[in-house]
Amino acid sequence: MLARTACAARAIPSRAVLRGYPVRKAIGTLPRPAFFQAQAPTHLARSSYSTVAPEGALPTKKKVWDSVDEAVADIKSGDVVLSGGFGLCGTPDTLIAAVSKKKDSITGLTVVSNNVGSGDKGLGKLLYNGQIDKVMASYIGGNKHFESLYLDGKISLELIPQGTLVGRLHAHAAGFPAFFTPTGASTAVEDGSIPIRLKEGGHKAGVAVPGNKKEAREFNGRRFVLEPAIAGDVALVRAWKVDEVGNCVFRYAAKNFSPTMAKNAKLTIVEAEEIVPVGSLSPNAIHLPGIYVDRIVKATAPKEIEIMSLARDSSPVDEKSSDPAKQAALATRNKIASRAAKELKDGYYVNLGIGMPTLVPEFLPPGVKVWLQSENGILGMGPYPTKEQVDADIINAGKETVTLLPGSAVFDSYESFAMIRGGHIDVAILGAMQVSAEGDIANFMIPGKLVKGIGGAMDLVSNPDKTKVIVVMEHCAKDGSSKILNECTLPLTGARTVSQIITELAVFDVDRKTGTLILSELQEGATLEEVKAKTEADFKVSPQLGRA
Amino acid sequence: MLARTACAARAIPSRAVLRGYPVRKAIGTLPRPAFFQAQAPTHLARSSYSTVAPEGALPTKKKVWDSVDEAVADIKSGDVVLSGGFGLCGTPDTLIAAVSKKKDSITGLTVVSNNVGSGDKGLGKLLYNGQIDKVMASYIGGNKHFESLYLDGKISLELIPQGTLVGRLHAHAAGFPAFFTPTGASTAVEDGSIPIRLKEGGHKAGVAVPGNKKEAREFNGRRFVLEPAIAGDVALVRAWKVDEVGNCVFRYAAKNFSPTMAKNAKLTIVEAEEIVPVGSLSPNAIHLPGIYVDRIVKATAPKEIEIMSLARDSSPVDEKSSDPAKQAALATRNKIASRAAKELKDGYYVNLGIGMPTLVPEFLPPGVKVWLQSENGILGMGPYPTKEQVDADIINAGKETVTLLPGSAVFDSYESFAMIRGGHIDVAILGAMQVSAEGDIANFMIPGKLVKGIGGAMDLVSNPDKTKVIVVMEHCAKDGSSKILNECTLPLTGARTVSQIITELAVFDVDRKTGTLILSELQEGATLEEVKAKTEADFKVSPQLGRA
Repeated sequence: MLARTACAARAIPSRAVLRGYPVRKAIGTLPRPAFFQAQAPTHLARSSYSTVAPEGALPTKKKVWDSVDEAVADIKSGDVVLSGGFGLCGTPDTLIAAVSKKKDSITGLTVVSNNVGSGDKGLGKLLYNGQIDKVMASYIGGNKHFESLYLDGKISLELIPQGTLVGRLHAHAAGFPAFFTPTGASTAVEDGSIPIRLKEGGHKAGVAVPGNKKEAREFNGRRFVLEPAIAGDVALVRAWKVDEVGNCVFRYAAKNFSPTMAKNAKLTIVEAEEIVPVGSLSPNAIHLPGIYVDRIVKATAPKEIEIMSLARDSSPVDEKSSDPAKQAALATRNKIASRAAKELKDGYYVNLGIGMPTLVPEFLPPGVKVWLQSENGILGMGPYPTKEQVDADIINAGKETVTLLPGSAVFDSYESFAMIRGGHIDVAILGAMQVSAEGDIANFMIPGKLVKGIGGAMDLVSNPDKTKVIVVMEHCAKDGSSKILNECTLPLTGARTVSQIITELAVFDVDRKTGTLILSELQEGATLEEVKAKTEADFKVSPQLGRA
Repeated sequence: MLARTACAARAIPSRAVLRGYPVRKAIGTLPRPAFFQAQAPTHLARSSYSTVAPEGALPTKKKVWDSVDEAVADIKSGDVVLSGGFGLCGTPDTLIAAVSKKKDSITGLTVVSNNVGSGDKGLGKLLYNGQIDKVMASYIGGNKHFESLYLDGKISLELIPQGTLVGRLHAHAAGFPAFFTPTGASTAVEDGSIPIRLKEGGHKAGVAVPGNKKEAREFNGRRFVLEPAIAGDVALVRAWKVDEVGNCVFRYAAKNFSPTMAKNAKLTIVEAEEIVPVGSLSPNAIHLPGIYVDRIVKATAPKEIEIMSLARDSSPVDEKSSDPAKQAALATRNKIASRAAKELKDGYYVNLGIGMPTLVPEFLPPGVKVWLQSENGILGMGPYPTKEQVDADIINAGKETVTLLPGSAVFDSYESFAMIRGGHIDVAILGAMQVSAEGDIANFMIPGKLVKGIGGAMDLVSNPDKTKVIVVMEHCAKDGSSKILNECTLPLTGARTVSQIITELAVFDVDRKTGTLILSELQEGATLEEVKAKTEADFKVSPQLGRA
């Protein structure tokens, strides 16, 4: 109604209208001289950034809305809603809060987002309100409430590798219906064995909606799966600076999924920390051109920090625990990490998984420095910040606050996973629950129990010919069973992708072509007999078997 | 030899080495304190851009080379060389010149580039030297020498739609072996009917290497072709600002293919207008992260301007020609363009083809302004510059100098064609040689005669449900034959993609679902009989037949 009136009353920017969404409450106009004048414009303002700026030759309509509630009013029950953000970084909390206020009128949403909030923060609001029917995400480990809803069969979940998630969003935005990707080939992603929805009552009650089986094909001897595009109805995105015609700039790692989602949806709504006049942003600095943005509101929600991690001098950790068990565990982790550090050379580009891998840089030999990639969109990640340095927009893939080194670059999730999947990272160091003799790795899921998600792990192991995959892990599980097996029993993260396994007892190399495991080093204090006793997998012993 | 020595003597950044290329002549080092220190860094420089910058915790190696000749020395005969640039804008002329100096030792190249220079400029140098065996390009219209080589069977040419060209380059860079795209479906691109190489003697002698037939598939009732990734050995790229670890910033439309090519190749060499110290570029402003860059040299070649087009007051055109034929032609073009202008609404995002479509903005009704997209990477293109405003880095898809409006954004070719193919442009206005009653369009090639290339045309018509395709053209060819046919006889640019045809005689709407042509308007002075006589295609007459 409001929509119709507004439509009738104004000349309306085309894009949202063409998509069936009204546009209203536009504020701000510019004078409108002729565009391609027979005579050149008489006043050619030389702006600060551009060589030429004949002022006023612009469409009159701006995209800024006064009311957040009205800006989200066209979201309908059942819509596919894309929500930017990684963890709580860069999440459109102002817009989410407005949607959450309509908890009775906007329900049954399919939400596409890397995570689904943390507790009642971020998308957690919509989850607690019962407004979400299905989630398409890569990682839900940060939200125990969601995990229990899924395990009880009360919500649908399509668990998608992070690079595939943003890739499928990109595909629709870019006009591609489907693409072949290595990520997830020969895993549960390919065979569709992760249920989308369990029956009420959970795992024992059975599967209500099975996973989607993917078409697979070999190119040049490697296996790939065909992934379909995801099309969004509405994208909710938070930006740093936005001009009145929708050109957006994002800040550090708050960029993540937002540009791709904004390009995907029929209706894209941006909440901006700063709304600036047309002409104040350099055309070279735009991360998201205005064509993709339909509505702009002022962001009012504060930034959240999910995990505050501080540099040690400002937040001393309990390193010198008097608990002998803790001390032993720490020593084990340090032994593994320090051996892994020897695999890195100066100038390497390296991605480190969450947990033990993050210890590796502490043990780099003198003169060796590496560039750390964080899959949420950082190259050149630095250590934890001091209290004064904390910035909510600079977090790592574990959602911890970090810093940026000089020479760092930030980019969106699509670019980050192109970098990863394309094999541009030299080494990926990951933890694992199981590794097989052939180099299969399982590190994301225990069926029926733990559902943390896939995150970036399947992407990180997707190009093992170009990116060396090193697994660092304790040799045995807590129950004493071997984690190095002839065949993994847990769902695979990747098949034949691991090149090296480093434990507190030994270093194994994997000949991925022949599927052969080779013991190449014994760690200090370990014996061949002990390694044999604690390793289920068959392995050869290198003739050059050495000591770490 | 040099390579081996260099490798042995230095700790080497990994990436180029892993790819089999040596790295040498690195200049400049930084101090190297521990990276993840047990204690936080003692001197935390707060740089101008970043929240945190613990100086010195960086790899020591830089990527800057003193000698351009040495930087290109590892290019081998037969390599696949990717060359950035669109026309002569953003072309790596410093590096190309260095390669051209090795005309006896570097031959048989496959060159991937949107164009192949203009005359002896840009890649024209390598062409005249006989260093190129095969070209993969979207458009060769700017180079008559190349055209004659191809038509005489002396060089191979894989003609690829511009968006598919950059898409195939992107695919390899991003780890995708192949992707489905609408561009080129149901055309010569799908059926492989454009020969890659003619036999010596040219068209009449027959085909030496036929085109590649593409797998096609329907998704949701639309037809798509499967396009394979292109892998480069070497990428030659020109950037604006580059820091010593390879982070690049590009300037305006000089960006075009460069970032995608840089991400693709095994060895990426950047010539930079400015080489700046690490830490002087904001992480938010980086267009190409340093991970993709292996070697950096100083750009010394001047920028070239292919077509200098100036605003009319500084370069009066012969509008008031006394030649009656010219006057009549001009009147015809204006009549068509002014009718097409009525299809545009304020705020529309519009792409205009080369030629008559560029006249359309002059006839926009009062109060209507549109955003012009130029497929080489501009949204918010302005009119021709005055002499003082000319900037070699700001050109349109026709390679003419243009300007940027306030609120404009620039982006690379991959993003530009994602925008186009994804259907984000409201209207594309194109010229044509032929249009069929069902909305097929032919506007890129006359077999055996004219080979200008495909350019962006196939992409611009690839999403006709979202982007309205309007053809503006003279009703009849110069020989008097109808250009509106029941079936096109020339190779198609797109099948069932045109929604409207505007000529000096009439306006036709195309019902693309039923394949029906409907005469909806007669232009001033035209009669139904005349239109019937001059239109080969069957058409219905709208009951509301009106006058323009």
